[in-house]
Amino acid sequence: MEIEKLFIKRMKELPSDATTPGHRLALKGGYIHQTGSGLYTYSPLGFKVLKNIEDIIRQELDAIGCQEMNMPIVSPLSLWKETGRENIDVLLKFKIRSGMDAVVNPTHEEIVTDYVRNVLQSYKQLPLSPSSLCLYQIQTKYRDELRARAGLIRCREFMMKDAYSFNISWEDLDSFYNIMLNAYHKIYKRLGLDNVIDILAPTGDMGGKISHEFQMISDIGEDTIYICSSCDYRANKEVLTDADAEDILICPKCGNKLKKLRGVEVGNIFQLGDKYTKSMGVSYLDQEGKKQTPIMGCYGIGVSRVFGCLLEQSCDESKAVFNLEVAPYKVHIISIGDEQAKTLANDLYNYLLSAGIETMIDTTDDRAGSKFANADLIGAPIRVIVSPKNIEHGVVEMKYSGLQKQYPDTFKIDEVKDKIIEIIKDNQG
Amino acid sequence: MEIEKLFIKRMKELPSDATTPGHRLALKGGYIHQTGSGLYTYSPLGFKVLKNIEDIIRQELDAIGCQEMNMPIVSPLSLWKETGRENIDVLLKFKIRSGMDAVVNPTHEEIVTDYVRNVLQSYKQLPLSPSSLCLYQIQTKYRDELRARAGLIRCREFMMKDAYSFNISWEDLDSFYNIMLNAYHKIYKRLGLDNVIDILAPTGDMGGKISHEFQMISDIGEDTIYICSSCDYRANKEVLTDADAEDILICPKCGNKLKKLRGVEVGNIFQLGDKYTKSMGVSYLDQEGKKQTPIMGCYGIGVSRVFGCLLEQSCDESKAVFNLEVAPYKVHIISIGDEQAKTLANDLYNYLLSAGIETMIDTTDDRAGSKFANADLIGAPIRVIVSPKNIEHGVVEMKYSGLQKQYPDTFKIDEVKDKIIEIIKDNQG
Repeated sequence: MEIEKLFIKRMKELPSDATTPGHRLALKGGYIHQTGSGLYTYSPLGFKVLKNIEDIIRQELDAIGCQEMNMPIVSPLSLWKETGRENIDVLLKFKIRSGMDAVVNPTHEEIVTDYVRNVLQSYKQLPLSPSSLCLYQIQTKYRDELRARAGLIRCREFMMKDAYSFNISWEDLDSFYNIMLNAYHKIYKRLGLDNVIDILAPTGDMGGKISHEFQMISDIGEDTIYICSSCDYRANKEVLTDADAEDILICPKCGNKLKKLRGVEVGNIFQLGDKYTKSMGVSYLDQEGKKQTPIMGCYGIGVSRVFGCLLEQSCDESKAVFNLEVAPYKVHIISIGDEQAKTLANDLYNYLLSAGIETMIDTTDDRAGSKFANADLIGAPIRVIVSPKNIEHGVVEMKYSGLQKQYPDTFKIDEVKDKIIEIIKDNQG
Repeated sequence: MEIEKLFIKRMKELPSDATTPGHRLALKGGYIHQTGSGLYTYSPLGFKVLKNIEDIIRQELDAIGCQEMNMPIVSPLSLWKETGRENIDVLLKFKIRSGMDAVVNPTHEEIVTDYVRNVLQSYKQLPLSPSSLCLYQIQTKYRDELRARAGLIRCREFMMKDAYSFNISWEDLDSFYNIMLNAYHKIYKRLGLDNVIDILAPTGDMGGKISHEFQMISDIGEDTIYICSSCDYRANKEVLTDADAEDILICPKCGNKLKKLRGVEVGNIFQLGDKYTKSMGVSYLDQEGKKQTPIMGCYGIGVSRVFGCLLEQSCDESKAVFNLEVAPYKVHIISIGDEQAKTLANDLYNYLLSAGIETMIDTTDDRAGSKFANADLIGAPIRVIVSPKNIEHGVVEMKYSGLQKQYPDTFKIDEVKDKIIEIIKDNQG
């Protein structure tokens, strides 16, 4: 992409509700536009990041045998009445023109359970070992939140990955739950999200026995987390008794004092048990031909919130830091000065494009400082600067961000193509 | 995928509202499940088809320089008031908890125009030649239809690709409109949708000057189309005066009688002009630094409806026909009889999987007829039958569907792997 053709606006005056660095970066960098309060449009640049995040999640879930599918955003209210959840507060209800009472689904336990009760007949249809099934979708969700906050961190409408497992027993659920927990850590690592820990979480509206949240430790977080430095205990404040009363709490496991931190929830997994499958009448025949009720788990990742978190953990509101898998452009070429530099930049650009590498090029006549500032906002991990001074020395200048390893500050002009390809291969997930 | 693990239900009793062959095939084949009236869940099998359709559309739009982005499903009613469209009948309105009047967007002209007015400043940001911009999204839409019909053909909730172009002049819009019209024909061809014609269409709620519909000629269609056999005139009934009054109409171009057909609308493109950009105050500076209002076009494809149409044009309600690009599985291997056949089938299966080819395998002990019936419903274009009788002759038996060319009925066992890879390459888009 030639930078002058990027359809983007660098906001100069930021709205007063942009109180976090990541929210300001999202607007300054032109990743999102606020269509309404808590309702965002993703620009072509922002959408590339969102898509890359989705693909990483998809690959890791497919790798553990989950199957992608898709459920409607709107559903009959009657399904929610079956489980007694028709009055939870984020549920947007309306009557459709044909007269049916409907809801915009804030989550899909009822919908997936209705689907599964129509399809599941035999244990043979539970393809994972031991007999389990895990269905997931990546979909826009709407929750009628009273207050939107911090851009992509708490929206009314957001992108979510929600997965639902159906298992033959609690033991089986437990083992699948751990497989998913490990997959989640792998996903956050590949996304380049630092400081994500799993903690004990309350089960809330969902019901069920055990729940974990994945929290990115951050001062902008809404959640209060307690962790123990002597043992492995860590939990959401809401799990602990009298949590409202005191600031210093005692670890229920080892008796030591707990440390208080703030976090942003980037995922949440639940052992639901038979709450939904029992009330909605799901059954299958086991190996002995006996009717059984499956045990259920559910597993969410806030896809657009992860995007918001990546912006929050970037350097500051002027510099986006993404790793190579997530970055909207992998390489950003800047030419400074004469035609010779432009020609060299264009040659490298065309080479990288033909190698299938998403590359940004800036050969405009803007001043160098402005070009670097734009590159900072776009966050390509590999930056190449072509200038007359460098050409004189037979080199191009390199800058990196979001990469784990160190690479040279310059490359010889005749080596730079191969070297960039090598760095990209070196960083593949 | 091993067929016994496919999470699917072959419906025996079909609902009484499944009145078209394609709707019955969608339910019998387990592609969709009805969550509510006009509200469908896509099974993992159905979702694969939907995804393949989306990818073809995405590739062809990217090839003509369109940029993918994403807009919210819910938006403030105030945006719709700016263009005076706040009372169109498929608009679902509600008040969100914070008090704002909101709508579920049935289309996104207002939303994209609001986005563009915030970003567009200069003609330089219109990257297509001559200066144009085309933004698109592939997204779930909800329209509060009074009556849902024929499964995926008319749903309340459906998957849509909607694109919006911003051009510097009517001439520029006209030339981009034709580029898009040609891209649409290319898309329908790659999707394997036969009998799609473009016809003159009414502009309706959208406003604007010229509109074309893409209609799949079909007896199950809701639209009445008139075509001339002497000249190139073809139009939706609604374009012609007095169309309600008579069954036989005269072509306004050549004076001959028009032929009446029925069609399913699978796409619709509009030259909107400045209806939205003017009322919502979009402007940019041209090369002379003068303020100009962009001219707009919009371009829709009903993604899930295309899926429905592909099922409608399949042989009958027992056999799905997809081409190689759209098919959920490319190859379907069936072994009949002894262990030797199973081993050979599994060997071929593992080879194709490692070559990255989505393959279904059926080595169950079901009777052959039932296996063939299942394969018919799944619609893999290449079917391989491994049986003791064939092995005796050193061959496997081949069956094909949805391919343009003819291929041999048998392959020698030691050649089959290479031959299948060749057929797949031969059919790549």
